[in-house]
Amino acid sequence: MSERVAAKLTVAELDGLLRTEFPELFSAENGFVIEDVWLGGCRVRKHFDPGSLRPGGTISGATMMALADFAMYVAVLAAIGWVPLAVTVNLNINFLKKPAARDLLAETRLVKLGKRLAVGVIGIHSEGDDALVAQATSTYSIPAAKG
Amino acid sequence: MSERVAAKLTVAELDGLLRTEFPELFSAENGFVIEDVWLGGCRVRKHFDPGSLRPGGTISGATMMALADFAMYVAVLAAIGWVPLAVTVNLNINFLKKPAARDLLAETRLVKLGKRLAVGVIGIHSEGDDALVAQATSTYSIPAAKG
Amino acid sequence: MSERVAAKLTVAELDGLLRTEFPELFSAENGFVIEDVWLGGCRVRKHFDPGSLRPGGTISGATMMALADFAMYVAVLAAIGWVPLAVTVNLNINFLKKPAARDLLAETRLVKLGKRLAVGVIGIHSEGDDALVAQATSTYSIPAAKG
Amino acid sequence: MSERVAAKLTVAELDGLLRTEFPELFSAENGFVIEDVWLGGCRVRKHFDPGSLRPGGTISGATMMALADFAMYVAVLAAIGWVPLAVTVNLNINFLKKPAARDLLAETRLVKLGKRLAVGVIGIHSEGDDALVAQATSTYSIPAAKG
Repeated sequence: MSERVAAKLTVAELDGLLRTEFPELFSAENGFVIEDVWLGGCRVRKHFDPGSLRPGGTISGATMMALADFAMYVAVLAAIGWVPLAVTVNLNINFLKKPAARDLLAETRLVKLGKRLAVGVIGIHSEGDDALVAQATSTYSIPAAKG
Repeated sequence: MSERVAAKLTVAELDGLLRTEFPELFSAENGFVIEDVWLGGCRVRKHFDPGSLRPGGTISGATMMALADFAMYVAVLAAIGWVPLAVTVNLNINFLKKPAARDLLAETRLVKLGKRLAVGVIGIHSEGDDALVAQATSTYSIPAAKG
Repeated sequence: MSERVAAKLTVAELDGLLRTEFPELFSAENGFVIEDVWLGGCRVRKHFDPGSLRPGGTISGATMMALADFAMYVAVLAAIGWVPLAVTVNLNINFLKKPAARDLLAETRLVKLGKRLAVGVIGIHSEGDDALVAQATSTYSIPAAKG
Repeated sequence: MSERVAAKLTVAELDGLLRTEFPELFSAENGFVIEDVWLGGCRVRKHFDPGSLRPGGTISGATMMALADFAMYVAVLAAIGWVPLAVTVNLNINFLKKPAARDLLAETRLVKLGKRLAVGVIGIHSEGDDALVAQATSTYSIPAAKG
C-alpha cells in the first residue's frame, strides 16, 4: 500500500529493543508478537492463552485492553523512533462481540501524529474472522525532545 | 454514609462466588481484594506485584485498566445480585499520574443503574496518597432477566 | 462498494421523516444534509456557518460533536428503520486538527449492530481535505421492539 | 469548602473576557451563565431553550455536549489564567437519563492540572434534581508558555 512507507524502526528493531529494555512488557511468556509495522500503523498478535479465558470460553476484556495499549505503543514508537517514555493519556474501548478461544490480532492506524500528542484507532479481531471484537481509540503523550 | 445501604451481595458472598466460579479472574495469585461494597459502589485493592512494574518504577496501564474493569464488575454485581454474564460495553480511562510501586485502590460509584445498562465512575489511587492516578468511566450491559 | 447494500430507509425517506418529525434537529436553518446512506453507514454534510467560528477562523468543538451525533443517528436509523427513540448512550471524540472555515463531512461506519446496542465510528473532515479533523465513537441504545 | 481557594480569574473577569473576546461562544443569546469558579472547578448554568428540545420534551445531546465542553473550558481558564488557545483534545460523555425541560447545571472538577494537559470530570444535572443526566470526562491541551 502506498501509505506503508517505512517506519523509523523495523519489526526486528522494535522486537529487540522492547525485549531487552522492557522484558516485563514483552517477552515469550506474555504472548505478544509484532507482525508488521509501517509509518502510521502496525499489526500485533496476542497468542491465545487459556489463562485469559472467561466463562463461556471467551477472552477477558483486560486481555483486549492490554493488547490495544501495546498495539498503540508499537505504532507510536514505529512512527517517532525509540522514545520509550511516551505514555498513554487516554484509552477508550468498545467491546463489540465475544472473541473466540483463538489468537487475537490488533491493527493500529494513527490518525494524528503531532509533536506532543499521537492518536490512534485500534481494531481487534480473532484470527480467521474479520469481524471486530473490540475497537479502541487511544491518545499518547510524546515527551519533548531534549535540546 | 447515608448512601451506603446494603448491597444485594456482601463482600464475603462476592468473594466466595467469584473465587469459586471465576478462579482465572479472581484468585490469590492475581492480587485483587474486595474491601467494601455498598449499594451503588465498592472499593477494591490490587496488591503490588513487581511483575507489573514499568521503567521508572511505575505500574503498567494494563494493570490499572484490569483493576478498573474488575472494580466496575464488583459494583454491578453488588447492585444487581449474582448476574455473572453482565458484560463491559465501554471503558474509557484517563491516566493522570504515574502510580508509585505500592498497592492500588479503586473506588467505583455507579451513576446509572438501569434495567439494561449500568454506568460507573472509577477512581484509582495509590495506597497512602489520595491523588488520583487514573479515572475511568465504564458501561455494563445487564442481560434480560429470564421469565 | 459491495458493502453498500441498501439501507432500510433511503436518503429521501430519512430526509422527509426527520424534517417533518424533528424540525428542531433537522431543518434548512441548521445546515445538515444527508448525502448518502447504506446498510452500515452514511455520509452527512454540515454547511459552513460563520456563527460556529472560533478565534483563529476554526469551527467549534460543539459543532463537530453535534455533527458526529447526528451522523450516528442517521446511520442507526438507516440500519434499523424508523425507530426514532434510539438514544445515545456514549460518545467519545478526539479532536485532531483545527477545521478550516468550510463545510464539514462526517462518515459513519457501524462496527456493531446488535438487538440492543449499536456502535459506530465517525470520521469528520473538511471539504476538500481528507485529513481527519475529529474522530468519534458512539454507542446507541435501541429500544425493545413492541410485540 | 476548603478546596475552594481562589482561582486565577474570578467569575466577573471570565464573564467579561469571554463575552468580549468570544461573543460567538458566550453571549446573552446562547444561555450560558458562569455561576461560580474556584481553583480546580466551576459551576455553569445553561438556561432552558425550547429550541433544544427533542421529542418527548427532553433536551438534545448536542446541548449537553456543548455545555460540558464550555464548563471544562471555564474550569481550565480559571485554573491557568487567560490562555484562550487551550483546546479540547478529547471528550467522553455518558448520557444517563433524559433531562427535564428545565435549566441544566454543569459542575467541573479538575482531576489533573499539568503543564501540558488538564483533565476534568463534568457532571450535569437538571435544576432542582441532583440525579446526573450526563457525566463527561475531558482532556485539554495547554499551549506552551511563551518565553
